[in-house]
Amino acid sequence: MDKRWIRDGQVMDKRWTRDGQEMDKRWTRDGQEMDKRWTSGNTGLVGGSVPVFDEVVISTSLMSNIESVDELSGVVVCQAGCVLETIDQHLEQFGFMMPLDLGAKGSCHIGGNVATNAGGLRLLRYGSLQGSVLGLEAVTADGTVLDCMSSLRKDNTGYHIKNLLIGSEGTLGIITKVAILCPVRPQAISLALLSLDSFSTALATACRAKSMLGEILSSCEFIDASSMECVTKNLNLVCPVAAANCYLLLETSGSNGEHDQAKLEAFLERSMEESGVQDGTLASEPSRMSKIWQLRERLAEALLLEGYVFKQDISLPLTEYYALVEKTRLHLGNKVSRCCGYGHLGDGNLHLNITVPHYSHEVARMLEPWLWEQVAACRGSISAEHGLGFKKRNDIHFSKAASAVALMQQIKKLMDPKAILNPYKCIPDIY
Amino acid sequence: MDKRWIRDGQVMDKRWTRDGQEMDKRWTRDGQEMDKRWTSGNTGLVGGSVPVFDEVVISTSLMSNIESVDELSGVVVCQAGCVLETIDQHLEQFGFMMPLDLGAKGSCHIGGNVATNAGGLRLLRYGSLQGSVLGLEAVTADGTVLDCMSSLRKDNTGYHIKNLLIGSEGTLGIITKVAILCPVRPQAISLALLSLDSFSTALATACRAKSMLGEILSSCEFIDASSMECVTKNLNLVCPVAAANCYLLLETSGSNGEHDQAKLEAFLERSMEESGVQDGTLASEPSRMSKIWQLRERLAEALLLEGYVFKQDISLPLTEYYALVEKTRLHLGNKVSRCCGYGHLGDGNLHLNITVPHYSHEVARMLEPWLWEQVAACRGSISAEHGLGFKKRNDIHFSKAASAVALMQQIKKLMDPKAILNPYKCIPDIY
Repeated sequence: MDKRWIRDGQVMDKRWTRDGQEMDKRWTRDGQEMDKRWTSGNTGLVGGSVPVFDEVVISTSLMSNIESVDELSGVVVCQAGCVLETIDQHLEQFGFMMPLDLGAKGSCHIGGNVATNAGGLRLLRYGSLQGSVLGLEAVTADGTVLDCMSSLRKDNTGYHIKNLLIGSEGTLGIITKVAILCPVRPQAISLALLSLDSFSTALATACRAKSMLGEILSSCEFIDASSMECVTKNLNLVCPVAAANCYLLLETSGSNGEHDQAKLEAFLERSMEESGVQDGTLASEPSRMSKIWQLRERLAEALLLEGYVFKQDISLPLTEYYALVEKTRLHLGNKVSRCCGYGHLGDGNLHLNITVPHYSHEVARMLEPWLWEQVAACRGSISAEHGLGFKKRNDIHFSKAASAVALMQQIKKLMDPKAILNPYKCIPDIY
Repeated sequence: MDKRWIRDGQVMDKRWTRDGQEMDKRWTRDGQEMDKRWTSGNTGLVGGSVPVFDEVVISTSLMSNIESVDELSGVVVCQAGCVLETIDQHLEQFGFMMPLDLGAKGSCHIGGNVATNAGGLRLLRYGSLQGSVLGLEAVTADGTVLDCMSSLRKDNTGYHIKNLLIGSEGTLGIITKVAILCPVRPQAISLALLSLDSFSTALATACRAKSMLGEILSSCEFIDASSMECVTKNLNLVCPVAAANCYLLLETSGSNGEHDQAKLEAFLERSMEESGVQDGTLASEPSRMSKIWQLRERLAEALLLEGYVFKQDISLPLTEYYALVEKTRLHLGNKVSRCCGYGHLGDGNLHLNITVPHYSHEVARMLEPWLWEQVAACRGSISAEHGLGFKKRNDIHFSKAASAVALMQQIKKLMDPKAILNPYKCIPDIY
């Protein structure tokens, strides 16, 4: 394989980074309407579901049956092609909800979510898919239907093979069905937006939220000043709190609205006593909450309006979380229009974004592998949510020890000796 | 291998079922004091950590360092030989707690917990170890130190190999170190004990608890009349509610005691309106709660006083949960002294116990495979928490599809070609 495909990114990058737009156009010209999506919903950032050389594309979008919802246990069984939001809407009538929520929920498929171990906005509260997926069915490289379908919360009979499939990016099998444990849908949701003088105040406030809001905290999102400026200016949105260096968006979900409000008010009162907390607003009315959420959820869209975006999805120890944004800003200097950071502070997941008017080789070269070296130095992860896909597979050693990579390659050879499942993805070229 | 080792159980069974007492005696005669425990804490029920033929025993009990606690993220990193309760006590000063809690917490090792994917009393609230374990280190069959140590909540760089090790019962590697995500320690804990006329009332009440107590429900335990009679009579304990066919023990843990009490009272008021709910008591004073918990936690001890106990640890769909106890009671008739059921109703985990004055071949033959057939018929699991170990490994097909068993065997051959890691365990003999 030619490394130029991942570094010399002009064409390839365009095809991947604009939410799949370019790709969709190209493939739907010759194909059926259903060809708009490949493998799964095609919403990832690392080219994990994009054909690059000689691949055969398999669509699961017609496998969209929700087979059952167990009203007692809250377990939903559905086919891989179900759209995340559709399943969540279906669960509403039974009083349950999907344990994961992403910006792409309206188009991403549950099969792809499971194949990439998708995280999202509420992992903080409801945990990862490694915990929520109780069973799955997949078709392996030799055509075997691998039946790991269980709907039980506790089942210790042999190896947890399903967990190996979760996050394997389609390289060990094509997931066709899943059983997912769903939490009870909250009776009340509230949202607070705070403006803060520094990242250290944001971190202290997030820790206070974890302690004072405990079991009702369902989201803890961080937005820096540059991100906030981008989303308000480019999309003409209004930020309801005073401008500051940092912002925290805290969501609570619980079974008793009055209790939640009381906890949130006590938390806000206590927080406002801190000199670094500059302003705050509280919302529980759906339309107001939706307006505030837009400041976070539409950030990716706002950044795209500035030209080309280098999007990075990384995990870091909390103490290093924002230092990396500042370091990257210094490193790139005036070569870029914007270098900003936002993300799921509650679980250490940073979305580092760099905008330039047009794709720049120079910036690309300055970013990688420099950024991966910074991430590796503090034992972070070069891909928090989106997997390795095509773009990052040869950078795996920045986040995984050689012993783990070697075993991963052996398992791939065992389960897919001819490398026909999602080839050129996830597994590094050079062993 | 001779099947008589697992069926003709007189000697072997004695060595396994009495909490390892017999085994401990035998092995400590020649060994050092530390030899009292093998592999891990040796608290399992299926002989998973008991040497049977020619095994070399490796103790991890000197690997008992708690290496770090991240006060921001709540991640604890510790060696495999740490005792579960010791880690939990250490976490208290930082305001965190271990996400799992078992009856054997005072002696079981965290390495063994992870190797067997232990569940326990609070899985309902805090999820499984597949979700809580963020990283692990293990020594594989060829002596490689497999480094999957990560302390990040989100890390999608390659296969989640650590999840394959979790629950592999020591057959793929010896776990030496783990990183575990720990929840915030609750500020307040309350306990309710209800007596109910039938299992269907118990199930409806458990569902109501899930809905009305939502995020604060931390335990939902079921005890039948026979179990309650056994624990109160044999251990001279007092049950504080009126005698009935079933009992439910509900625990709440939260960040605000007043809110939790209010939720619990509303739930109890609503429940007492139901004709099937006969009596109830609420406790939040530690000594009173401890007395109530004893009714559940000392059940295993109480049963042992009746002679020999056939202990079964199974998972079932909630609608079948108690029907199996009644069916087994009918099936065994007057061949046994007692056939009772209790367990983690919240996650479908039933502990079915049968007592006889002395070990009985006839009862053993009546129980297996009859019981596994019943479990398989409703898609339950023949081992919810304790794994397959030595005793159940050849019964794996009752809970796992052939395709999954075949892949499991291939992975075992790949990672341990000479079958030197915990031999004769977990993997079935006949392929």
